[in-house]
Amino acid sequence: MKYYNKVKIISVDIGGTNIKLGVIDSKGKVSDFRRVVIEEKDKTEKGIVRVLTKLLIPWITKKDITKIGVSVPGFIDFELDLIVRSPNFPEWHNFPLRKVLEDIFNRQVLIENDANAFAIGEGWRGAGRGMNNFVGITLGTGVGGGIILDGKIWHGKRGAAGEIGHITVEPTGLKCNCGNQGCLEMYASASAVAREGTELLKKMGLNVSKNAKAREIFKLARKCNKEAIKIFNRVGYYLGIAIADMANVLNIDGVVIGGGMSNAWEFIVPSIKKEIAYRANPLSRKSLKILKSKLGDYSALFGMAKVSLNP
Amino acid sequence: MKYYNKVKIISVDIGGTNIKLGVIDSKGKVSDFRRVVIEEKDKTEKGIVRVLTKLLIPWITKKDITKIGVSVPGFIDFELDLIVRSPNFPEWHNFPLRKVLEDIFNRQVLIENDANAFAIGEGWRGAGRGMNNFVGITLGTGVGGGIILDGKIWHGKRGAAGEIGHITVEPTGLKCNCGNQGCLEMYASASAVAREGTELLKKMGLNVSKNAKAREIFKLARKCNKEAIKIFNRVGYYLGIAIADMANVLNIDGVVIGGGMSNAWEFIVPSIKKEIAYRANPLSRKSLKILKSKLGDYSALFGMAKVSLNP
Repeated sequence: MKYYNKVKIISVDIGGTNIKLGVIDSKGKVSDFRRVVIEEKDKTEKGIVRVLTKLLIPWITKKDITKIGVSVPGFIDFELDLIVRSPNFPEWHNFPLRKVLEDIFNRQVLIENDANAFAIGEGWRGAGRGMNNFVGITLGTGVGGGIILDGKIWHGKRGAAGEIGHITVEPTGLKCNCGNQGCLEMYASASAVAREGTELLKKMGLNVSKNAKAREIFKLARKCNKEAIKIFNRVGYYLGIAIADMANVLNIDGVVIGGGMSNAWEFIVPSIKKEIAYRANPLSRKSLKILKSKLGDYSALFGMAKVSLNP
Repeated sequence: MKYYNKVKIISVDIGGTNIKLGVIDSKGKVSDFRRVVIEEKDKTEKGIVRVLTKLLIPWITKKDITKIGVSVPGFIDFELDLIVRSPNFPEWHNFPLRKVLEDIFNRQVLIENDANAFAIGEGWRGAGRGMNNFVGITLGTGVGGGIILDGKIWHGKRGAAGEIGHITVEPTGLKCNCGNQGCLEMYASASAVAREGTELLKKMGLNVSKNAKAREIFKLARKCNKEAIKIFNRVGYYLGIAIADMANVLNIDGVVIGGGMSNAWEFIVPSIKKEIAYRANPLSRKSLKILKSKLGDYSALFGMAKVSLNP
C-alpha cells in the first residue's frame, strides 16, 4: 500500500486548442497543474510529439513520474494501438502516439479517448462516484460520450463505443460532418447553439466572432431573453431524447454532463428531464440521475490518472 | 463433467398466446418439445400458475428434471424478484412467478425476460455464436431486445435494459402505448406493417383479420407488389436508425434478428444496411454483422437452458 501511494502519474489532456497537464497521486491529489496553447504549426503528428516531449521531459525527471496518461480527442483503435483519426487534428492518421511517447520517455504510457477519460475521471472523483453504470456526456463544440458499465469504461469491439454525439435524433435532420444527418451533435453542441442564435445576435446588434457566439447567447438567456432560453431548451430536448434512448437500452444509473455548454444547466436540464419522463420506460427512468460534472477542467486529467493506476 | 452432462433442464417460454416447453441438456440437445395454447381465462396470475403446474408436474417427475428456466414477456425487477408488469398479461402486477414455481416444484427456477432469453439462446447455440457483444432483436407484434455484453446478458440497474423497441426514431412521430411517441416499435413491428398496409389490402380487395394483415402484406411483397415492398423497406429504415444508434453507443459486433417479421428478411435487411452505412461511425460499422436468428421457435428455450446451466 505504501508503494502504491507513491505512484506518481502525470496526466495530459490534449484538447483542440490547448494541452493541460497535472501531476496526480493515487489518492486523487493534484500537485501541479499547467495549461499550454497548441500553436497551429504544432498540430501535425510530429508537432504534437515535439510539444509533448519539450513539456514533459523536465517534469518526468524532476517529479519522479512512473506513468504517463494521455487523453486525446480522437478515435483510438486499441487493437492496433493507434489513434485512427481526430476531428481536431485532421493531419493525424493512424497515429501511434502512445508507442512513440513510451519510446521517448521510457515510462509506461496509457492512452484514452477524451470523452472516455472524462467519464472515468467523474466516476473516480467527480459526480459519477457511487454510480456503477452511467454515461459521461461532454457538451462542447461537439458532443462526446463515455460509457461506464460495471464501473469500467466500455470500449466495444474496436474502441469506438461512446459516440453518443452521433445518435440520430432527427432522421431527416441537418447534415453532420460524420456523413449522417440529424445527429445529436447537430442539435446539442455549442456549434448548434451558435448556429441557432445567429439571427438573434444580429437582431440584438451583437457582432461577435464565431467562437464567442454560444457564450453570448448564454448571456442573453441569463438576461431572460426568451429566444435565447428557447435555444438552450431545444438543446435539452434533443439531449433528453438521446439520454432516454440510452436509458431504455442500458437501464443506466444516470448521466454526468460536463463541457463548456453544461454552464447553461438551468436552461437545459428541465427539458432533459421532461423528455426522459416522457420517453424512458418507467423502470429505467426511476431514479435516473442527471448530474453536473464536478471536476471542471480536471475531469480528463483525473480520468487518465485512474486509467494509469488501474490499467 | 459427467455430472454436468446429466443436468436436465426444462425450459418454458411463455408467449402472449401460447406456452412452449422443451427438455434440453447441457450440450444443447432438445429431447422433448411441446406447445400449448393459453386460454383467455388462464391469463391471470393464478391462471398461469395453474396451467404451468398442470403441465410441468408430470414432466418433472418423469424426466428427472433438476432445474426449470422460464422466459416471460414482461419487465422483471431482479432486485425484488418480481415480474413488474407484462403488456401481454395486463392482470399481472408485481407477480412473484419465480418464487411461486420454486415453492410448488421444489426445484431451482430461473426467470428471464423473453427478448433477453432470445439473445442468450442465439448467443449460445444460434446466430450469435462467436459474438461477445451483440443485440438480439425480436420483431413481432412489438419490438424486443436483449443486450449481450462480454458474453453475458446486460440487465442494467433494475433489469429493464434492452427496451430497444422504445428508442425514439421519430421525435414527433406516432403515439406509442408506452406513453412516448415515435418509438421504434411503432415503425418496425408487425403491428406497424399491418397499420401501414391497411389501405393497400383494401385496394387489393383482401379482407383479412387484424392478426393476418402483416402476413398478407408479406405475401404481396413476395409477389413483387411495390407498395408492399416499400412498407417493409420502411421497417428496415427505422431498424437501421436504431441499430446505428446502438453501434455508435456500444460498438457491438453485430445484431441477431428474429421473430415472425424476420421472415421478410429480403425486404428489410437492404434498408437496414443502407442506414448503418450512412449513420454509424466508420469503426463501429466496420464488420458489424446483421444476422438472422437460427433457432426459430427454440431461441428462448435455448436461452433459458443456458441461464439455468450458468445462473
